[in-house]
Amino acid sequence: MSTQSLSYAAMTKLPRRLLLGPGPSNSHPDVLAAMAESQIGHLDPAFLDCVDALQLRLRRLFGTGNPMTIPLSATGSGGMETCFQNLVEPGDDVLVGVAGVFGERMCEVAARQGAHVARVDAEWGTVLDDDAMLEAIARVQPSLVAFVHAETSTGARQPVEAIARAARDAGALVVLDCVTSLGGLPVTLDTWGIDAAYSGTQKCLSCPPGLSPASFGARALERVARRKTPVPSWYFDLNLLGGYFGERRVYHHTAPIAAIVGLAEALRRIEDEGIDARVARHQRAALRLVAGLERLGFEPVVAAQDRLPMLTSVRVPERVAREGEAVVRRRLLDRHDIEVGGGLGNFAGSVWRIGLMGENARDEVVDRLLAALDTEVGETS
Amino acid sequence: MSTQSLSYAAMTKLPRRLLLGPGPSNSHPDVLAAMAESQIGHLDPAFLDCVDALQLRLRRLFGTGNPMTIPLSATGSGGMETCFQNLVEPGDDVLVGVAGVFGERMCEVAARQGAHVARVDAEWGTVLDDDAMLEAIARVQPSLVAFVHAETSTGARQPVEAIARAARDAGALVVLDCVTSLGGLPVTLDTWGIDAAYSGTQKCLSCPPGLSPASFGARALERVARRKTPVPSWYFDLNLLGGYFGERRVYHHTAPIAAIVGLAEALRRIEDEGIDARVARHQRAALRLVAGLERLGFEPVVAAQDRLPMLTSVRVPERVAREGEAVVRRRLLDRHDIEVGGGLGNFAGSVWRIGLMGENARDEVVDRLLAALDTEVGETS
Repeated sequence: MSTQSLSYAAMTKLPRRLLLGPGPSNSHPDVLAAMAESQIGHLDPAFLDCVDALQLRLRRLFGTGNPMTIPLSATGSGGMETCFQNLVEPGDDVLVGVAGVFGERMCEVAARQGAHVARVDAEWGTVLDDDAMLEAIARVQPSLVAFVHAETSTGARQPVEAIARAARDAGALVVLDCVTSLGGLPVTLDTWGIDAAYSGTQKCLSCPPGLSPASFGARALERVARRKTPVPSWYFDLNLLGGYFGERRVYHHTAPIAAIVGLAEALRRIEDEGIDARVARHQRAALRLVAGLERLGFEPVVAAQDRLPMLTSVRVPERVAREGEAVVRRRLLDRHDIEVGGGLGNFAGSVWRIGLMGENARDEVVDRLLAALDTEVGETS
Repeated sequence: MSTQSLSYAAMTKLPRRLLLGPGPSNSHPDVLAAMAESQIGHLDPAFLDCVDALQLRLRRLFGTGNPMTIPLSATGSGGMETCFQNLVEPGDDVLVGVAGVFGERMCEVAARQGAHVARVDAEWGTVLDDDAMLEAIARVQPSLVAFVHAETSTGARQPVEAIARAARDAGALVVLDCVTSLGGLPVTLDTWGIDAAYSGTQKCLSCPPGLSPASFGARALERVARRKTPVPSWYFDLNLLGGYFGERRVYHHTAPIAAIVGLAEALRRIEDEGIDARVARHQRAALRLVAGLERLGFEPVVAAQDRLPMLTSVRVPERVAREGEAVVRRRLLDRHDIEVGGGLGNFAGSVWRIGLMGENARDEVVDRLLAALDTEVGETS
């Protein structure tokens, strides 16, 4: 069947935006084309070959040998939920590092599992202090330590190794949120000693939202197998998911076929480019963006050494705040078809979050945004 | 961006199948085209208009005025999970009608919430006995009664009204699985008195798998609001989902944008055809299929008055069983690009499940299958 048709013209067309918020980013046209070609069943041998190739590439991207490296049938928040519903039981002590909205969310999800949640906070826009985390690990003796690699609410990049090592040395499982980092920053789960990690497709992988690529190591799966209580979630139960994403390919739920085919194509493209080149591209684009934003009077929130390349948070200049930052964002959308993100939580109303994720981490994209901003909010506009 | 590109040719192409198993069915090309055009954010005013239109049409298709009628960000099994995680608390008495795999699954999901699960069983291929259900409702006095409208493992169509009325009269919430029925059979939640229902996109709606359209009435939402314990699932928490799918449009998780745009297009197409015409089309195609299968020696499992139109289960003839039913299905796939389903559970190895769902419920599709079957397993083949 063709993706073109007469009757599609009858549908109200959606505008096509340049997506420079905190995600989703733009999907690559090859990814969308692959999805549009997927007329195949979830137990078809040809589709299962595609799943095999996807899992292999996802392991390489996560830097892990974990066999249980899979696309979960949910968005990134479903990946977070899968970790806590499987790895935490009522009464467990869990330590969460909180430096923004997604660390907060981890506390909330863990508490719903009946965990005793201890937390170490960092000021928004900064990263967790290693010593504070190490002290808390020694004091709390948690069964699980969780934190965020790339905090999408602030644009800060969390160093991973020291905290992960201390947590493992204390016998805890380590869970890392890689929603915004995977595909734009090096992620090396096995070197870091991460037991469970999850991401999302709509950030640096340049797919539509809908899947959470995730990886679970042997220590995590042992914890699940040794649970005293059943995993509350049937849908996210790793024991059951392992039946489909393992040798036996047992039906659990119907896999989101189109999204999986799209992710497989995205991962193929990432390997074609090479992860080192891709990381460097994100870095270059971010530097160009920050320089241009500073010229326009936007002030980076995060100190230079802690900035994410794929997500830049900036305080809006006085003249933008005066007009109302949301009004200006709406004008960018309506006049230029460009979406940038507002602030979440503590940053609502004063901060913009500008994403250069995956395919959008390019000079020409930066220049298009800067030109639009110059028109709308430049000194002379 | 175009959905065509040179580099896509570099990808290993998947075969394009005629999907006549228990789901997924083939997606309509307009749905895939709409998905491939979706470069838009989940808080974009134009996308939120699309969500509004989707919710309006979904209410009409479910036969309900429930404001909380939404696409859940998961497959159909995620819809089941959402019902039980929200509507059941530890210690609750839950009654499930079991006539196949999906009734069994309801028991399992309810038990994981700490419910006391009572069940009424029907022989596979038959429907629940009204009197047995009414007796159990009176005896158990459950807080929730759940059953399946279209049992995908057997092909049986469950009458809804008498059981739903008795359950509500006894003060129970009523949960109905409409995964395979929605879009192919009349579904009238408000007339029947259903408090919560869920479906899947990959059956009679002719979209890829990945969303669970669902609806929750006032009594169900009151039950959630009055819970003594938090909903264990943050991802599926109806209180939080109501923030995004309500007036305020508060960010909860990133909506699966492409899938939602596809579903919106599918629902538009269904209204263009008209649900009555669509139901009649499913009915006609099923009659043609059964007549043709009987000529080839396949014997329907379900009595005529209880058969689903969109899913026909048949015992394979002796000569197919002798060769191995899975071998013959594989030949249909390899030689004809046609997928039909094997049996699940009790029916594994002896039964085929043949779906004529959504766009595939057409005479020419039936004739293509029958011709292929005649070639492969006809008396003279």
